Amino acid sequence: MSARKKSAARRKTTASSSSGSRKKASTKKKKAARKKATGQKARKKKARKKTASAAKSVAQTARRKATLRSKQAASRSSGAGETSRVVFYFGDGQADGRAELRDTLGGKGANLAEMTNLGVPVPPGFTISTAVCSEYNSRGRRLSKSVRADVLTALARVEQSRGRRFGDVDRPLLVSVRSGARVSMPGMMDTVLNLGLNHETVEGLAVLADERFAFDSYRRFIQMYGDVVLGVPHERFEHLLETRKLRLGVDLDTELEGNDLRGLVREYLEIVEEHTGQPFPQNPEQQLWGAISAVFDSWQNERAVAYRGLHGIDEAWGTAVNVQSMVFGNMGEQCATGVAFTRNPSTGDAVFYGEYLMNAQGEDVVAGIRTPQPINESSRTADTEGLATLEEQMPKAYRELVRIQKRLERHYRDMQDIEFTIEEDKLWMLQTRSGKRTTAAAVRIAVDMANERLIKREEAIARVQPSSLDQLLHPTLDRSEPLAVIARGLPASPGAAVGQVVFSAEEAETRSKAGERVVLVRIETSPEDILGMHAAQGILTAKGGMTSHAAVVARGMGKCCVAGCGSLAIDYAANEMRVGEHVIRAGDSITVDGSTGDVILGTVPTVIPELGVAFEELMTWADRFRKLRVRTNADTPQDAEMARRFGAEGIGLCRTEHMFFQPERLLVVQEMILARDAVTREGALSKLLPMQRQDFEGIFRAMAGLPVTVRLLDPPLHEFLPKTNEEIQHVAEHTGSEVGEVRAKVDSLHEWNPMLGHRGCRVGITFPEIYRMQVRAITEAACVVASEGVKVKPEIMVPLVAHPMELLLLRSEIETEIAAVRSERPRCRVKPEIGTMIEVPRAALTADVIAEYADFFSFGTNDLTQMGYALSRDDAGGFLADYVERGIMADDPFVSIDEQGIGELVRLGAEKGRSTRPRLKLGICGEHGGDPQSIQFFAGLGFDYVSCSPYRVPVARLAAAQAVVAGLPG
Amino acid sequence: MSARKKSAARRKTTASSSSGSRKKASTKKKKAARKKATGQKARKKKARKKTASAAKSVAQTARRKATLRSKQAASRSSGAGETSRVVFYFGDGQADGRAELRDTLGGKGANLAEMTNLGVPVPPGFTISTAVCSEYNSRGRRLSKSVRADVLTALARVEQSRGRRFGDVDRPLLVSVRSGARVSMPGMMDTVLNLGLNHETVEGLAVLADERFAFDSYRRFIQMYGDVVLGVPHERFEHLLETRKLRLGVDLDTELEGNDLRGLVREYLEIVEEHTGQPFPQNPEQQLWGAISAVFDSWQNERAVAYRGLHGIDEAWGTAVNVQSMVFGNMGEQCATGVAFTRNPSTGDAVFYGEYLMNAQGEDVVAGIRTPQPINESSRTADTEGLATLEEQMPKAYRELVRIQKRLERHYRDMQDIEFTIEEDKLWMLQTRSGKRTTAAAVRIAVDMANERLIKREEAIARVQPSSLDQLLHPTLDRSEPLAVIARGLPASPGAAVGQVVFSAEEAETRSKAGERVVLVRIETSPEDILGMHAAQGILTAKGGMTSHAAVVARGMGKCCVAGCGSLAIDYAANEMRVGEHVIRAGDSITVDGSTGDVILGTVPTVIPELGVAFEELMTWADRFRKLRVRTNADTPQDAEMARRFGAEGIGLCRTEHMFFQPERLLVVQEMILARDAVTREGALSKLLPMQRQDFEGIFRAMAGLPVTVRLLDPPLHEFLPKTNEEIQHVAEHTGSEVGEVRAKVDSLHEWNPMLGHRGCRVGITFPEIYRMQVRAITEAACVVASEGVKVKPEIMVPLVAHPMELLLLRSEIETEIAAVRSERPRCRVKPEIGTMIEVPRAALTADVIAEYADFFSFGTNDLTQMGYALSRDDAGGFLADYVERGIMADDPFVSIDEQGIGELVRLGAEKGRSTRPRLKLGICGEHGGDPQSIQFFAGLGFDYVSCSPYRVPVARLAAAQAVVAGLPG
Repeated sequence: MSARKKSAARRKTTASSSSGSRKKASTKKKKAARKKATGQKARKKKARKKTASAAKSVAQTARRKATLRSKQAASRSSGAGETSRVVFYFGDGQADGRAELRDTLGGKGANLAEMTNLGVPVPPGFTISTAVCSEYNSRGRRLSKSVRADVLTALARVEQSRGRRFGDVDRPLLVSVRSGARVSMPGMMDTVLNLGLNHETVEGLAVLADERFAFDSYRRFIQMYGDVVLGVPHERFEHLLETRKLRLGVDLDTELEGNDLRGLVREYLEIVEEHTGQPFPQNPEQQLWGAISAVFDSWQNERAVAYRGLHGIDEAWGTAVNVQSMVFGNMGEQCATGVAFTRNPSTGDAVFYGEYLMNAQGEDVVAGIRTPQPINESSRTADTEGLATLEEQMPKAYRELVRIQKRLERHYRDMQDIEFTIEEDKLWMLQTRSGKRTTAAAVRIAVDMANERLIKREEAIARVQPSSLDQLLHPTLDRSEPLAVIARGLPASPGAAVGQVVFSAEEAETRSKAGERVVLVRIETSPEDILGMHAAQGILTAKGGMTSHAAVVARGMGKCCVAGCGSLAIDYAANEMRVGEHVIRAGDSITVDGSTGDVILGTVPTVIPELGVAFEELMTWADRFRKLRVRTNADTPQDAEMARRFGAEGIGLCRTEHMFFQPERLLVVQEMILARDAVTREGALSKLLPMQRQDFEGIFRAMAGLPVTVRLLDPPLHEFLPKTNEEIQHVAEHTGSEVGEVRAKVDSLHEWNPMLGHRGCRVGITFPEIYRMQVRAITEAACVVASEGVKVKPEIMVPLVAHPMELLLLRSEIETEIAAVRSERPRCRVKPEIGTMIEVPRAALTADVIAEYADFFSFGTNDLTQMGYALSRDDAGGFLADYVERGIMADDPFVSIDEQGIGELVRLGAEKGRSTRPRLKLGICGEHGGDPQSIQFFAGLGFDYVSCSPYRVPVARLAAAQAVVAGLPG
Repeated sequence: MSARKKSAARRKTTASSSSGSRKKASTKKKKAARKKATGQKARKKKARKKTASAAKSVAQTARRKATLRSKQAASRSSGAGETSRVVFYFGDGQADGRAELRDTLGGKGANLAEMTNLGVPVPPGFTISTAVCSEYNSRGRRLSKSVRADVLTALARVEQSRGRRFGDVDRPLLVSVRSGARVSMPGMMDTVLNLGLNHETVEGLAVLADERFAFDSYRRFIQMYGDVVLGVPHERFEHLLETRKLRLGVDLDTELEGNDLRGLVREYLEIVEEHTGQPFPQNPEQQLWGAISAVFDSWQNERAVAYRGLHGIDEAWGTAVNVQSMVFGNMGEQCATGVAFTRNPSTGDAVFYGEYLMNAQGEDVVAGIRTPQPINESSRTADTEGLATLEEQMPKAYRELVRIQKRLERHYRDMQDIEFTIEEDKLWMLQTRSGKRTTAAAVRIAVDMANERLIKREEAIARVQPSSLDQLLHPTLDRSEPLAVIARGLPASPGAAVGQVVFSAEEAETRSKAGERVVLVRIETSPEDILGMHAAQGILTAKGGMTSHAAVVARGMGKCCVAGCGSLAIDYAANEMRVGEHVIRAGDSITVDGSTGDVILGTVPTVIPELGVAFEELMTWADRFRKLRVRTNADTPQDAEMARRFGAEGIGLCRTEHMFFQPERLLVVQEMILARDAVTREGALSKLLPMQRQDFEGIFRAMAGLPVTVRLLDPPLHEFLPKTNEEIQHVAEHTGSEVGEVRAKVDSLHEWNPMLGHRGCRVGITFPEIYRMQVRAITEAACVVASEGVKVKPEIMVPLVAHPMELLLLRSEIETEIAAVRSERPRCRVKPEIGTMIEVPRAALTADVIAEYADFFSFGTNDLTQMGYALSRDDAGGFLADYVERGIMADDPFVSIDEQGIGELVRLGAEKGRSTRPRLKLGICGEHGGDPQSIQFFAGLGFDYVSCSPYRVPVARLAAAQAVVAGLPG
């Protein structure tokens, strides 16, 4: 994305601060609420009217006294009188408030005061404190006389500072009136801009700027004030606007000329009078009281009340009101407007970076009519070749801007995103905030700032979003050109993949071996597809969620995956899929983006990011801080090696079942399952033994010196059996069984709820010879590798324990087998630890007893979530998205651990386990082991390690360090 | 079962007390242990030999002093000297010990003392206290001199009491030496009978009784002593016995004559000498020390150590040794032996009841050669017509027996099972214990005894096993004739059923309508079979456990069911099944017994028991004590009425889905599911509304005045959809859909783990119109019935809540719908309570928040167990039985609540719920609501009610009363 486009997109979202278009409520409910509010406003208006003349005289008196008072105020220390002060002025380098008074001034007010105190030129104004909001409500929605007096005093200071007068025809002062609560409630409350315009001042503005701008501002002001303060439905104004555009045959608001807008203003004023029975208020002071009251009222509007309910915001806090002088960047050639970043937000380079437009306002950028210019040479791009810079055009203002941006960055200790306007060669800062940045920039900026001693290393660690690191590790699409996105699924595993479509795992393997790049497209995947998934560049499925088989396995492989793309209609028989009007056949090229979920027709170039020095430096710091160890889930030596390169400190979960699915082995596994008795079964197992031993040897070598937790066989046996008639035929032929026999076995092993069925240690208990073979393979492999002088630390893990007796029994069988191997190899000193998964709710509840037989616990939070939540991740697609959307669940509980419920089980299990065995090693090997939010939770519980897929290892390292930095125990 | 047969069967189990045959250990391990013990014994024997002569002189001196001492002892208060006393004499109506000294005397010793003190004629003897066991072990397995002296003193008193002398040729005293620990450890330790026999005394016994008996006793003594004390393998003796029988061509031991046994004794003595290198000890005192030591040693034998480990018995407790004079019922015509019950154990009638044999020993009854005679007229049966009674033959002894049995019953306050022997017209009581009885007798005896003021009503309540009440409510098979049992399954739902085999629910319905009685036989059942199950007399399935669909539904209907009968090979296509060599075709008659699991060819007559007055009286008392209310699970007015007759106090679970399976409704339900949008769906729902309303009206009427909890739709929608092609075709035709459309819906709703899928309130959230219809039906029905003047207390229950937000959302929708109905019917004052199931582990863990939105909690412990234990009850068949058998689980957790694990979840849920809402109503509606053990647990947690199937209501009422009586809170 070019800087230009980014800036435009960004303005769209921030334009409201200068152009004032506010989001419209549109549901019936909101209309009803507004109707009600209108009634209230009408009643209040009558009451207000009576006091209006009185207020006017007070205001005039106050204005005369303003000069004197402002001098007195300036000499007062900013701390004095704070407790009784309710109106806080800011401007001319001095403010009554400061950042710490957020509770009193609201977030916006406090920041405006802070910037002012920093010596940054902020358009002057004042903040009416949150205390007034309470008073206003307790007085039956009225402003007290003393508040009114203080407001007028502050207003007089603003007039003096700007050299303009409220209601003055030649040099009219215009102000914005905005809400600002203690915490940000974006879009929840009301705002009025350009207040102070009337029949007379609009003409003055037309002279200062131009007619079109003046009347457009007036039109907007009438609509905004009409809607917010007077309760005129905004649709009525919009209807008039649309009608006029239709009549003139124009599409855009910007195509209307000054005269058109003048006419529109007339019509708007008629609408107001018709609706309220009163002419639109021409007295700016009257406008001001109306707007201030409306902002206070908006604290109680339906949206705000709902928002507070959702976010636990106390109603008593109230909102402050900010009244600030408007400034304009379009009042002539000595005017400009722009945005800038204190460092490059794409690369993190420590250079001042930004763009601007002469004689313009923010909207002009949005409209895209003019190309923004670079503020300096380092901001110049291919698009802006030949354009003058701000540095060249307005050197004085530019120098001040440079001085200010440095000051702001130093003060806020972070890269700032700033908005500025130059009005008549005078620089005004409208906003500063921490700037959004790419992950690469975030890492670079954090590390640079720590090295510049601007922030501490702890802060550098805290500044980078751990989950964003994924971006750095995977290829991404070059999105500089528009893409033919034909569908969007779930961004299940990040990265981008380009290749020819294949619809079966076998074809993926075949074509991959032939050197082709393929994308595997399936309705959903199953364990038999593993090798095809490995062979493919990326995976695309029509069904399944973020934790479906495809998603989990793909993340484990670090392979791009888009899952649950419901709009694909896949027809395996025809070897094609339909997406809307597109028909995509096997062999056609597609591109999938696992970071966005996009499915794109054709081939899109990809970019492989470099990790860079800053990344390595940040990781080193993280490792020094964190207490939680980070292991990886890896089933092959290749995965183990990769994870080790990413910093894994061992394997927390080595699944043995994936090894069983390799075609030459699957038949032996099937032979074992179909065995009529233990002897035949042992025969098949003895064929598997050397294969398993070899697997483990490779993994132990790759993880030399580090612990490797091997989980004994977990899935139900029926997962290894054939499904279709042909498959059954094939298996019968190759295992020497009869077809009927195979089919009978398949039928007899069928389960209604396999998740709660005959699997995990239950299989190990009913068929002890299976675990015996695996334990032997692990121990023998460890002995072999140890004899090569490599340090081996095997850990044997029993899955699905629900009852302590299961572990007691299996532990004794495992120990017997280890002893048998060691008696055959007297020189081998390997002694595997024996532990268990805690993945069944009952295991967590009885963990105190289970701990008697376990050297370690590894929490399988995937299954714990499935059972504890009664939520099958394969089946939750039908309602889970709905649930998250409707706010029933805050997050997908398979992505971030559900702290309230499943987390409570984890906490119970950890506490109970350690009550029996205080040094019990505790780990996590569910998907949550790679989720930063969950890692914080586990760190807080004093876990020893998390285990996650290889690509998540850096994420976990950083998140674990953040858990320490955040001051959490652990 | 006739009294005669019962008595014989019973003797088989108790014969060891008089005939002394002890259980033989037979495993290799045990042999090894014995071998080791033999070595120890050999060493000890040498040591013993040295002290033997010294002991002899001590014994003689002691015997001389015995007369004097026994007089002193008699004058001592029985409490004095207890602390230092280690040998406790009993006999002649006075005992040193008493029942309370169980820790010192062991159970048997304390009871013998107690009986003696009661004035019951017990053969005299003495108990060597458990303290000696410790001393014996700490002294390196030696008896101290002072103990030996005390033993000889006590022995002298026994000699005096019986007028016989140890080792005397004419009137030899024979004793038994038995262990007796604080708690019973049946068969774990050693026993020696007939001690005191040698070459000389055996001849004396031959004169007193007869030669055959004397030498048989001697033979047994040698074998027993040889095995237990001298370590001679018992196989060697058995081998000689078998060889002799073979040579003589006889089958039974009893066929050997006196002379044969005389020869066998010679051979036995040779074996002993050959094995030990010593002749068999002829000195009775030497025999005694050997036997006492052997009993103490047996406290440490492998069996006993293992038993203690399993039952948590402290090793330090030690065992006592009981030495007691032998008595013989076969020493002439003034001798007899018998057993009796203080009341009739079949009916509970308060009459003395028993049988006996003249000049006989217990073995004669076991051998079945002679028919036992009735002790009195009330004990006479058809079998014993014409036989003399004890009352007639030995009136004096009979009168004493009557006196004693009354005394024993009054003392032990329960119906006693007593064993007696009359030796030379002298009545001796050998044993008394609480007698086994039928359920009808248990109820009758408990109520009678309470009315006789023998026990309190609380005790009467505690005396009846709640689960046994099932026997009283269901028909049972007449088992007086042998039955052709062809298979055995699980006794899934009690009662008996006789009828013609049908293999489909439809046929069950058709033939039942035609007036035939049918038994529905299925591989397994599913919800579509409900009506067929209703129509059948009983249900038999080949697959599924105690909590399979068939079992649960059958228990709910109170219908007999045998489930999981694996030996049935059912062939639906051929309309037949094979069981072993039998082929049973549709229409053949079978009988199934749901109380035993038996499947029987042909028609067996059934007996319907009467509940009787005693039952009603007991239930009334139970109701007065219990605090837990008992509701029922009922889905129809018929079930509700039946449950009410059994005492149900409301409906705790009215499932609405069964109503949906009626054929005429199922199509409408399917139409609803297939609806393409909410409007079409509402159309179908509007057809269901009047049907549901009618259902609820009937139930509310049946439960007038009592609460009715209606659970909103729970199963996943796919349960209502067709499966086979024909069914799909049929549904498509009748709902106006296309076949492809129906199939696509079936496919799209398929779930891998439906238990954890889109069901319960999740369906209610994604399709709000379904719950809306149900809430409307409930509220409208309540209004209609209330308008008839009937008191209606509806409770609406939301299933499968896992997250508080689900209930918050649904509660608001339910309240809105109730308000809508009430606004249409302003005169209706019905206000349903709204509550939730707690059946998901997460719900229990977050119950404090959920309680904010719930008027009541009903714990669904079935699903809570399935999820908490990761145990699908449909799939657990493959390993659950194995697990229970191997001791991994104590019980099937679907039968009795797993207190350690799932119970902990229930406790957490209840506590958390009440922490928010202290008066929150708590109930149980899982299968555990009808299980007495579980009911105790729930009562202890302070639950308000349990809900169970109608036939379990009396069981629950009694169990709830027992929970109070047992002093548990609640």
